[in-house]
Amino acid sequence: MPALIDAIRRYYGTIGVELEPDDVLITTGGSEALLLTCLSILDPYTEVIVPEPYYPNYTTFVHAAGGRIRALPTRAEEGYRYADRKRIESLITKNTRAILITNPGNPTGVVLTEEEMRMIADIAKKHDLFLICDEVYREFCYDDKFGVPSMGKFRDIDNNLVIVDSVSKRFSACGARVGCVVTKNRELQQALLKFCQSRLSVATIDQIGAAALYGVDPGFFRECKAEYRQRRDLVVSRLRQIPGVQVEEPMGAFYLMASLPVDDADKFQKWLLESYDDHGDTVMFAPGAPFYETPGMGINEVRIAYVRECAELERAMELLAGGIARYRSEVMGE
Amino acid sequence: MPALIDAIRRYYGTIGVELEPDDVLITTGGSEALLLTCLSILDPYTEVIVPEPYYPNYTTFVHAAGGRIRALPTRAEEGYRYADRKRIESLITKNTRAILITNPGNPTGVVLTEEEMRMIADIAKKHDLFLICDEVYREFCYDDKFGVPSMGKFRDIDNNLVIVDSVSKRFSACGARVGCVVTKNRELQQALLKFCQSRLSVATIDQIGAAALYGVDPGFFRECKAEYRQRRDLVVSRLRQIPGVQVEEPMGAFYLMASLPVDDADKFQKWLLESYDDHGDTVMFAPGAPFYETPGMGINEVRIAYVRECAELERAMELLAGGIARYRSEVMGE
Repeated sequence: MPALIDAIRRYYGTIGVELEPDDVLITTGGSEALLLTCLSILDPYTEVIVPEPYYPNYTTFVHAAGGRIRALPTRAEEGYRYADRKRIESLITKNTRAILITNPGNPTGVVLTEEEMRMIADIAKKHDLFLICDEVYREFCYDDKFGVPSMGKFRDIDNNLVIVDSVSKRFSACGARVGCVVTKNRELQQALLKFCQSRLSVATIDQIGAAALYGVDPGFFRECKAEYRQRRDLVVSRLRQIPGVQVEEPMGAFYLMASLPVDDADKFQKWLLESYDDHGDTVMFAPGAPFYETPGMGINEVRIAYVRECAELERAMELLAGGIARYRSEVMGE
Repeated sequence: MPALIDAIRRYYGTIGVELEPDDVLITTGGSEALLLTCLSILDPYTEVIVPEPYYPNYTTFVHAAGGRIRALPTRAEEGYRYADRKRIESLITKNTRAILITNPGNPTGVVLTEEEMRMIADIAKKHDLFLICDEVYREFCYDDKFGVPSMGKFRDIDNNLVIVDSVSKRFSACGARVGCVVTKNRELQQALLKFCQSRLSVATIDQIGAAALYGVDPGFFRECKAEYRQRRDLVVSRLRQIPGVQVEEPMGAFYLMASLPVDDADKFQKWLLESYDDHGDTVMFAPGAPFYETPGMGINEVRIAYVRECAELERAMELLAGGIARYRSEVMGE
């Protein structure tokens, strides 16, 4: 829809990325943007390098295209930072087609520095790889030094870069299912267009609504970010008060990964749902293992989404603290 | 969305097909229903038998999953009917995974008789193949003997059958992008569910609207059908008045295929757009070749969609008649 493409181009202009109309393909959410990108660039047995932990649905999109994920390991004690040139390059093989990153990161909240972004862009360029950058959390960076980061400003990687984007997080409009692929690679544009034409269109009303959303006052983003920063600070400070919990302060998005002093976060979650009860309440998180490709990783880690209001998060952290204590004594026998 | 699944189940009840909630997976239009079905059941180099001419986007969905189309040839002079047991079985190989049909058919308007439906169901059952039946035009059968046909009533093929459905044609709501896959095969349900979960959801507002559409008065379908029947009758009678045009009366959907007395329908279409002008008007159709997998087929055929009002169709047929006469004299030199 031209009105939506125009709105997206104007928005990208405000973050320093100039786009032509053909550079934007509207998709049914960031999810379809990723699926169509994978179907366009992967053949069976080709590989995509992805820092782990990562958004688990990436696996489905890569596998749907017959591809494989080569996980780039990170460490909780390093705050899950992955921008290490040697580690990344050591994973590149003749089958590698792309590096896929989320910046700011889900589930870790890692935000790349300007130098790290440039270094990863250089790797993609040097090895002639696609760099798929999922930037749907771009507005949510809690240190002002990051601004509103996009790989799109590195014009020397125009042929490598594929930006995955969406209105879901930017405007809290995940039910609209409106996203886009942004790329200046003409050959890829043509391949993506074939898939887009085969499924005809993205829902019409939602495209009209999304185009209107791009007209919101910039104050909206400032308020959102201030609110999420408050939630992050609250959750991190409460987690640090729970004995045995390890957590690094996330710099962006609205998630964090934490290690809990439990044997198995999945088992602990089931116990919380089935056996724990504090005045009728319990608490849920996302167990960490599914965010890893490497077997055995993330067993005692969890992803916490700080997307509820502060009062609810306060109560959730209280329930988590109580739950950990009781689980350790009743189930782990400590 | 439970309200939409309930509405779809009630609707299927009215056409004699009893569904459980798990039998229905909501998709972003019939297009996604087809793509996810192909991704779920096909491996590289496996084959799908499809009567040609067929909806060209089937090719993209099958190829996206690495599969191949084995075209089942039909003949214009037989009205493109394809329900021939020997011809179908002769195409089955060890790589065949599915038979894919559209009933009523796009682009041919062919509607299977009860006996033909049963015979195709028997082939799928005997050879343990999936039968993917695109039934999005189910309401548009112009002979009352067909009723509102669905393969879903043959309960002995529950494990083979995959129905592709959509609100696009039923309620003239193609911009909503709401469809579904209907299958009782539990293993396939699980595979489809993984893809559905990976892309999270179909657009929310559109699901709410689609659920409401299923509550329309049955009189709506009677009026629609009467209107389309009138359009079909008009277009067929006008086409038969054009010398050299061959057309069989389509029994369903809102398309027909016709052979024109021109050398190349694609070339003729370009000429109509660039060089023909009758009081400022010209006419467009879909050239036939892209509806065929077999090279060289459909060169002088066209698909006509009788989706405009009768007065516009009358004028379109007048323009086509005039265009054919002038093209034959000016371009073909006859």
